[in-house]
Amino acid sequence: MKWCRFQNGDHASYGIIEGSNVIEVSGSPFDRYTRTSNRKPLSSVKLLVPVIPPTFYAAGINFREHVTEMAHKRGEEPKFPPAADVGYRANNALVAHDEAIVVPKDATEVFQYEGELVAVIGKKCKKVSEADALDYVLGYTIGNDVSERTWQRGDRTLWRAKNTDTFKPMGPWIETEGVDPENCDVQIRLNGKFISKYSMSGAIFGVRQFISRMSQYLTLYPGDVLWMGTDGAPENMKDGDVCEIEIEGIGVLRNPVKWEK
Amino acid sequence: MKWCRFQNGDHASYGIIEGSNVIEVSGSPFDRYTRTSNRKPLSSVKLLVPVIPPTFYAAGINFREHVTEMAHKRGEEPKFPPAADVGYRANNALVAHDEAIVVPKDATEVFQYEGELVAVIGKKCKKVSEADALDYVLGYTIGNDVSERTWQRGDRTLWRAKNTDTFKPMGPWIETEGVDPENCDVQIRLNGKFISKYSMSGAIFGVRQFISRMSQYLTLYPGDVLWMGTDGAPENMKDGDVCEIEIEGIGVLRNPVKWEK
Repeated sequence: MKWCRFQNGDHASYGIIEGSNVIEVSGSPFDRYTRTSNRKPLSSVKLLVPVIPPTFYAAGINFREHVTEMAHKRGEEPKFPPAADVGYRANNALVAHDEAIVVPKDATEVFQYEGELVAVIGKKCKKVSEADALDYVLGYTIGNDVSERTWQRGDRTLWRAKNTDTFKPMGPWIETEGVDPENCDVQIRLNGKFISKYSMSGAIFGVRQFISRMSQYLTLYPGDVLWMGTDGAPENMKDGDVCEIEIEGIGVLRNPVKWEK
Repeated sequence: MKWCRFQNGDHASYGIIEGSNVIEVSGSPFDRYTRTSNRKPLSSVKLLVPVIPPTFYAAGINFREHVTEMAHKRGEEPKFPPAADVGYRANNALVAHDEAIVVPKDATEVFQYEGELVAVIGKKCKKVSEADALDYVLGYTIGNDVSERTWQRGDRTLWRAKNTDTFKPMGPWIETEGVDPENCDVQIRLNGKFISKYSMSGAIFGVRQFISRMSQYLTLYPGDVLWMGTDGAPENMKDGDVCEIEIEGIGVLRNPVKWEK
């Protein structure tokens, strides 16, 4: 099942995508819901960020190749994380499929995408095992962990490097079936041109490991999102570029880049 | 005006505290509201966390004495932040006034309070000056940035050191008048005994500086909270302790500590 959130007059509604249509539901996938008789062509609706998370988690440094390439660019030795220690991102930065990534004037050219698998929590959970962890996932969507590397290196925290408004595209929808979070491919395209591809099988810690470890100390709530980190060495994005991230079994998240003048 | 949030039958309501009573309102302080005829003694209501923030910001390292003392404890030289770079905390960890701070069995004895002034954003803002920044603050409350220092030093991020469930007491209410965020005193008591006191005048960056700098890159939304960091060198808390944080002009945030057996 494909869950989306869309602009419905002056409010946001959840919908189920069937073929080329969206069926509006009352309620949400995180609670009770009922299908309404309102059906619209998917091409006619404005998709919104598929969920506004109560807490926005990000795995960060989670692929050996990415850690190695980023360290070499800085002239350092790579350090691999010994445990699934999660970080945070912020809701102010979320934008939907097809919305612009707006880059502040004072950003530098080291401005990059990071295509990521996103697990969306469906049920409250605490102290779950790795074996049971995926039972608490509603489904998967796609995230672009857009990063300004000069700020990422220079600031004490990642606040503006990764959480400037519009730096966190997420969508286009949540796919509840057929996604293999431990093996799916993630592909990046810039302006329609293939740039790179990696497999989630290269993750140091998987969705199961993160959810189980996190839940030993904290409660995960319906709608919380967990961005899984990225592999490889991203390229820079310029004004006017269009970045597409495709994940096998989910779809394509596409966002144009617009530099402030 | 004192704004609180309280348990009202099976749901949460906002209320205005007048003298020893709570007047229920419909709506919220962040939008429109109307006073209802429902009035209860403050002593009879269960206070909730006064706001669930869309984004939960924390200034972190923001007082010279705290930075110096914590660095010396680690045998390092202090490093002062050159800019107001904000960090994040997580909503799962919030608990209200009088609720227990529950400590996992595997926590170490280096388990500490951090009493902090909290600014609550009242109006959406972007690119505001330092001079205008306080116009976007609804009021102030109190936060206890409870921290397990072994995890804080050893983990790659602050996720469990600072965001384990119940590690972020906030309350008891939001005071909209008479708080001086640049000069008020913050006092810590353990089991009724005075431990320490500091003044917000010792902050490296104040509420104005943080809000103005943050808003150059991101939008602050009604209900967002900004925890301002703490001064001094905190002491350890043991099972059965009661931690009180009093801020001049706001009130007292009190929470018992309960170690899991």
